[in-house]
Amino acid sequence: MPDPARLSINHVTTKRWTLPDAIAGYARNGVRGIGLWPASVLAYGVADTRRALDAHGLVATSYCCGGMFVATGKAERAKQRERNRALLEQAAELGAKSLVCVSGGLPAGEKGLQAARQRTADELAELLPFARSGGVTIGIEPIHPMKAADVSSLSTLSEANALCDALGDGLGIIVDVYHVWWDPDLGHEIQRARGRIAGFHLCDWLPTMEENIGGRGMMGDGVIDIAGIRAAADRAGFDGFYEVELVSTVWEQRDPVEVVKICVDRYRTHC
Amino acid sequence: MPDPARLSINHVTTKRWTLPDAIAGYARNGVRGIGLWPASVLAYGVADTRRALDAHGLVATSYCCGGMFVATGKAERAKQRERNRALLEQAAELGAKSLVCVSGGLPAGEKGLQAARQRTADELAELLPFARSGGVTIGIEPIHPMKAADVSSLSTLSEANALCDALGDGLGIIVDVYHVWWDPDLGHEIQRARGRIAGFHLCDWLPTMEENIGGRGMMGDGVIDIAGIRAAADRAGFDGFYEVELVSTVWEQRDPVEVVKICVDRYRTHC
Repeated sequence: MPDPARLSINHVTTKRWTLPDAIAGYARNGVRGIGLWPASVLAYGVADTRRALDAHGLVATSYCCGGMFVATGKAERAKQRERNRALLEQAAELGAKSLVCVSGGLPAGEKGLQAARQRTADELAELLPFARSGGVTIGIEPIHPMKAADVSSLSTLSEANALCDALGDGLGIIVDVYHVWWDPDLGHEIQRARGRIAGFHLCDWLPTMEENIGGRGMMGDGVIDIAGIRAAADRAGFDGFYEVELVSTVWEQRDPVEVVKICVDRYRTHC
Repeated sequence: MPDPARLSINHVTTKRWTLPDAIAGYARNGVRGIGLWPASVLAYGVADTRRALDAHGLVATSYCCGGMFVATGKAERAKQRERNRALLEQAAELGAKSLVCVSGGLPAGEKGLQAARQRTADELAELLPFARSGGVTIGIEPIHPMKAADVSSLSTLSEANALCDALGDGLGIIVDVYHVWWDPDLGHEIQRARGRIAGFHLCDWLPTMEENIGGRGMMGDGVIDIAGIRAAADRAGFDGFYEVELVSTVWEQRDPVEVVKICVDRYRTHC
């Protein structure tokens, strides 16, 4: 059984709760971490969010998402960089374990992923000095290849490790079981990520694409060997939070109180 | 522009046509190859199919699918092996360039892909002597990771190349741009597949998952650098047919005459 003190829940998992309600609700159930999104943090206020976290003894285990390195024009790129720097400042103020950066997909008309991959490497190199000086880790997150065209040209842990090799300090990797469970190189790449795992996300992969359209599955309802992947991350030296990030049109409609209790229970029994 | 004599169309692309109509219709438009499925071949008769192919000067560029190595019990496994041996015999009689084998997904309750991958390797090793003695190539096809749980535990060209390394003669690889376009190791693994590429499938990846639910896109309508991948296969020594395999609930409803003309046109302009 994983350490109960290492469980975190991403706010997206209980969308019906406002941010202060989620912070209080998680704390009430013994959950010590929360994954945050800019929209609700900025609505509530960054300073107020930090105060609420501290008052309830919660850690911001992620702030998501920066990145989306899709701009190809100069003006758009300047705007994108400005947005990412602002997110880094917010992440620092929140004390977030990382600013999760998703690489973004393809601009209209672009074919293949080569240019998008280069843009990601270039923009991460540009953003990293600001992350270092602010003391915030940029967590790059490989996203399932089914979203390579529209969400993330970065699909695998192998690519994420290569970016860390190339760009150095300040960059970490977010391992989300939903995105990487299928990877034949998973075990090897998690070991290679030793010292770089900046976050670990939990949920499950429902067997068919049709079921997955509604979103991700609760841990135990799908086919991922979650306990095995989690143990591999621990063997690679990861000692941070395991964050349930259950993006799902099905689960987001349920009573948040019930959802948190199920998260805690499934974390014990299926992770 | 790719060689017009190397264009093939899979029967699934023009489902509204019966098999004899598809054979005649493709030939009428200068298409020299056809991808075949057991259901329609067995309905029409294997010998009659072969006669129709020969009469129209068409080559069976694939026979799909064998494999589906999902059985875990002894009786089920025996039945599965019997089915695959029968498919090999049919493929031989059709003169098919390969029996395409898809590895299959997970039996109910199984977590992770390790056991499924082992079953695939074991069953391919069992089937290969029959393929060799019948003179039929088994074409293993990496399928997009979004289908790892329900269709194919074999997701990447790297895994397919490793299986060829391990199991030797008689095994080939089907490169389908829809399934492998996102792979960061694509260029390297296609070169590694030199002498092993037993088939090459064409279609396109529509940018979002939502669009892809209806099926695959016609070449040119999506984001794949088809010409680039096709040229890489040629550089790796591939000189076989390029087969349009447009599995799509949208395209299958259109007039087959029109669909074939569009396939021929897009092959010229976008491949």
